[in-house]
Amino acid sequence: MQDLTTQCGTLTIDLKALADNYRHFQSITDKNCMIAGIIKANAYGLGAIEVFDALIALNCPQFFVATLDEALKLRRHNEDTDIAVLGGLFTGVEDTYTAHNITPVLNTPHDIKSWAAMATKADKALPAFIHFDTGMNRLGLSADEAQDLIDDQSVLEGIDVQAMMSHFACADDHTHPYTQDQAEQFAAITAHFPHIKKSLANSSGLFADKAYHYDMARPGYALYGGNPTPHLDNPMKPVAHLKTRVLQVRECKKGQSIGYGASHVFEKNTRTATVALGYADGFLRSHSSYPHKPNAKLYFDDTPCDVIGRVSMDLVTVDISNAPSLMQGDWMEVLGHNQGVDDLADASGTIGYEILTSLGGRYKRSYIR
Amino acid sequence: MQDLTTQCGTLTIDLKALADNYRHFQSITDKNCMIAGIIKANAYGLGAIEVFDALIALNCPQFFVATLDEALKLRRHNEDTDIAVLGGLFTGVEDTYTAHNITPVLNTPHDIKSWAAMATKADKALPAFIHFDTGMNRLGLSADEAQDLIDDQSVLEGIDVQAMMSHFACADDHTHPYTQDQAEQFAAITAHFPHIKKSLANSSGLFADKAYHYDMARPGYALYGGNPTPHLDNPMKPVAHLKTRVLQVRECKKGQSIGYGASHVFEKNTRTATVALGYADGFLRSHSSYPHKPNAKLYFDDTPCDVIGRVSMDLVTVDISNAPSLMQGDWMEVLGHNQGVDDLADASGTIGYEILTSLGGRYKRSYIR
Repeated sequence: MQDLTTQCGTLTIDLKALADNYRHFQSITDKNCMIAGIIKANAYGLGAIEVFDALIALNCPQFFVATLDEALKLRRHNEDTDIAVLGGLFTGVEDTYTAHNITPVLNTPHDIKSWAAMATKADKALPAFIHFDTGMNRLGLSADEAQDLIDDQSVLEGIDVQAMMSHFACADDHTHPYTQDQAEQFAAITAHFPHIKKSLANSSGLFADKAYHYDMARPGYALYGGNPTPHLDNPMKPVAHLKTRVLQVRECKKGQSIGYGASHVFEKNTRTATVALGYADGFLRSHSSYPHKPNAKLYFDDTPCDVIGRVSMDLVTVDISNAPSLMQGDWMEVLGHNQGVDDLADASGTIGYEILTSLGGRYKRSYIR
Repeated sequence: MQDLTTQCGTLTIDLKALADNYRHFQSITDKNCMIAGIIKANAYGLGAIEVFDALIALNCPQFFVATLDEALKLRRHNEDTDIAVLGGLFTGVEDTYTAHNITPVLNTPHDIKSWAAMATKADKALPAFIHFDTGMNRLGLSADEAQDLIDDQSVLEGIDVQAMMSHFACADDHTHPYTQDQAEQFAAITAHFPHIKKSLANSSGLFADKAYHYDMARPGYALYGGNPTPHLDNPMKPVAHLKTRVLQVRECKKGQSIGYGASHVFEKNTRTATVALGYADGFLRSHSSYPHKPNAKLYFDDTPCDVIGRVSMDLVTVDISNAPSLMQGDWMEVLGHNQGVDDLADASGTIGYEILTSLGGRYKRSYIR
């Protein structure tokens, strides 16, 4: 079968850049601060197994995923790693955790009770993380439940607590007082457990304040090249590079419209390109052009070309007035040195995380190792 | 390995309903109108191979996909079907089309010239569709190029034209004058090719006017349960059924906030559920709650529960004030008999097509046959 790159996008994932990002985390933390590998959601869309291997090669001491299924996929690939599941414990799955040596993050008193009971049954200490909620109101022990645990620590008997953790809600906004408030709550709770390790910082927390580093940082987004410091230049190297091909070049006439809903009407004759990229590829429909919204862009060489009209399932149209040499079959950059995941997200009211996790199944994927 | 359904969503794809939808298209068209199978974008996210097989069983005479790669995947699965590629022809891939008996849709004079040259080289007629643009300005021959083809039909020599086609931009809006205008352009062009078959109607066009049916209709969205008549009740059966699990139930207090950005602040004490579903699963971040935007909903039994706060990568939080019996481990409906793809899309300014094609890779998928 011939090379199939000809009619779809190509997504290149730079694992060397990812490794550099990981080493950058190590360079800004104390030697005794572990850097966990956050590889949930298929490693933010970039390939869980490939990223897992890359981080194993860097001696990453601890991995986190969102679901038990994700953990089992990693476990089948590697027997000797520490893998934890953020989503908590269900009644009925405790045996799966122990059988495959997977560590739960315990989010509720019920989770703690179930896991302690498992330890009794197994007649050995079982590892787990304990998650305190300090303001996300998403997962983790509430303030009241934390107080109960402080008051009666015996419920942890049989549980080998790897670390106590919490998660920031607003750390990407360096002006937000919420972050410091969460950090103070976390410090107050964990002060009652002086001999247990602590983990607080996500990507932005890691870059915000050394006081948040504790014993283990959990940077996800920044590992994949996202900017953990939106108010500053991005200290990370880009990991995802995406380009796709021009299927057709058109000369659209003044007064004509383009795309579904005929929503964009040309004010003058305009040269356009129709590109093999659509919302079915994760190029979100919110990248469509609307009045009073910045245009999302694709790049031809270094020339930005505005997305015009609505993004279709398999196609997007761009104004190529500024790229007169562009022809059918040429490649355009979606993510690369002109446009990172944060830039593309900014044009459409979302975040680079969603840009990454939406990257679609039709791209031809390759890895730089 | 144990059943892994416990911590992720389950997506059930009802191929019986899909078959009923296909038969419904047949019931509203004349006997000599073919109904093509539009299975691009992994059959709108629901599984190209599974849908392909279901439509083959119904003797579907013609399949369309967006890219050559998609066509080759289908061809490997079945040798005896007619498969066409909407994305057009690139210089250099003509041999792949002929080697695998795949039919291109020719969108440009250059495409036509290349394919005619291939026919000369092969010394036999080669099948193709010819696509006229009548107002999408996306793919297909422009009005000027159509006129050139009318004036010199000899360029089609060697091409066995399966049908001439065009595509509606606004057929889902039954009040939009654009549709009739496109239909008139299409009729005017194709009148010059009386012996060649014609294809115009997409899902909405099929339900809008019998005059659009011609020799082949190409309903995509409606096949998968989307409403082709948004101003009327949906005549189609739902195909995608998605439910997911509650990871934690919380009692949030008045004045507390929830989720990233602390964007939603509780005006009263509120019981919430954190559910295993996030934008990495294709539950779009635009389903987050914002002021002055209708809330997206999940359903517990038949009780709607508002999404509150921002959708996270792996998690979403809902207000379960109206579902007092809901507990950790319970299932909530995302798509099903309470909420179809159009309903979910309506809450977030997108279309059900994007809901379908975004359905993620972590769901446990099963098929009703």
